[in-house]
Amino acid sequence: MSERPQIAIVLAGCGVFDGSEIHEAVLTMLAVDQQGAEYQCFAPNTWQARTIDHFTGHATAIAGDEDNRNVLAESARIARGQIKDLQEFKAKDYDAIIFPGGFGAALNLSDFAVKGADCEINHEVRRALEESYDEGIVIGAMCIAPTVIARVLGKHRVKLTIGNDTKVAAGLKKMGAEHENKAATEVCVDEEHKIVTTPCYMLAGSIKQVAEGTHNLVESVLDLI
Amino acid sequence: MSERPQIAIVLAGCGVFDGSEIHEAVLTMLAVDQQGAEYQCFAPNTWQARTIDHFTGHATAIAGDEDNRNVLAESARIARGQIKDLQEFKAKDYDAIIFPGGFGAALNLSDFAVKGADCEINHEVRRALEESYDEGIVIGAMCIAPTVIARVLGKHRVKLTIGNDTKVAAGLKKMGAEHENKAATEVCVDEEHKIVTTPCYMLAGSIKQVAEGTHNLVESVLDLI
Repeated sequence: MSERPQIAIVLAGCGVFDGSEIHEAVLTMLAVDQQGAEYQCFAPNTWQARTIDHFTGHATAIAGDEDNRNVLAESARIARGQIKDLQEFKAKDYDAIIFPGGFGAALNLSDFAVKGADCEINHEVRRALEESYDEGIVIGAMCIAPTVIARVLGKHRVKLTIGNDTKVAAGLKKMGAEHENKAATEVCVDEEHKIVTTPCYMLAGSIKQVAEGTHNLVESVLDLI
Repeated sequence: MSERPQIAIVLAGCGVFDGSEIHEAVLTMLAVDQQGAEYQCFAPNTWQARTIDHFTGHATAIAGDEDNRNVLAESARIARGQIKDLQEFKAKDYDAIIFPGGFGAALNLSDFAVKGADCEINHEVRRALEESYDEGIVIGAMCIAPTVIARVLGKHRVKLTIGNDTKVAAGLKKMGAEHENKAATEVCVDEEHKIVTTPCYMLAGSIKQVAEGTHNLVESVLDLI
């Protein structure tokens, strides 16, 4: 095993409207590599809640049936095939675990997009997060993904940001978390619980800003290791 | 219309094994934005030659049928829905046109992966390239995508690189192009024909190197405008 910090990146499909936001995921990998750490991608081996045609914006169907795609197989596109089933994730082998955003976080890792603060969390995602917290490794999340952290770790009164959206912020609070307003490229650092979050496309107006946000997030994550 | 340089980026699906290489596509967008230009994504409205499960590496099927995905709809995932049918591309509205790599370039934009130097080119891709050349705008391509340029513009003896793969280089030469060996992050600049190419994942060993290659490519493209 390399002596460079080891970062797990958890994906949720491939595409902003039904999976991981691709720019956020790729630019997280880039920030990790550029800052001297190593990443390993993971995704739960489960089915997407829905599949959206990203050109038309409508749900897709194949021969009349639902276009049911596998979250691990679609996430593998972003990872160039170098990805593992989240079931294989062991917190003790990593220094940090990071969740990029995209609707997949609120549709596939959880059902926050449907149920809000009463959402359920995919059992492997819950296990990975609880194990990461217990093991004391750093947890990072961006865009809408902090909702997943709030649902699992809100009981510890963790501090998070999803930018400044009052409705989502209210959801975070209902799940027990504290919310801190942040600008597009700023990070919210919860030193006590070792959690770093940043808004990315909740607020970013360009891919350049997302690169800045992911850079800042990874920098803060590495600082806490 | 903004006064910033306008760059068209042509995608070929979403994923290295059957579409556009996602890191190359995203990092091209980032390089364009970071260097003060603007991009608009395009893709041909056609069907993928095949769909590959990027986790298993095998072709996928839905209910026994081929998993037939639309190139424009899948490309839209990388573009966050902000994409146009390549049919709408007019060279006179742009300063440059760039083709990221991935097998999609050799499966969907052309069939180079199947037929090599005798490949056929998607008719909208051919039209866009010929119009771009005639209009004198800059043409960029990375990874395996220079094969598409060679097939359409080889008759002009254009100079290209795909890195140092002798088999693919021989294919380029058979299509009329000259080939120049280049390292992962270097660019080959054909000033006479205003064409810039770089190997990216034909040689790159990390996403950091791909970011360097796309940065260098976009820098050379902007220099030639």
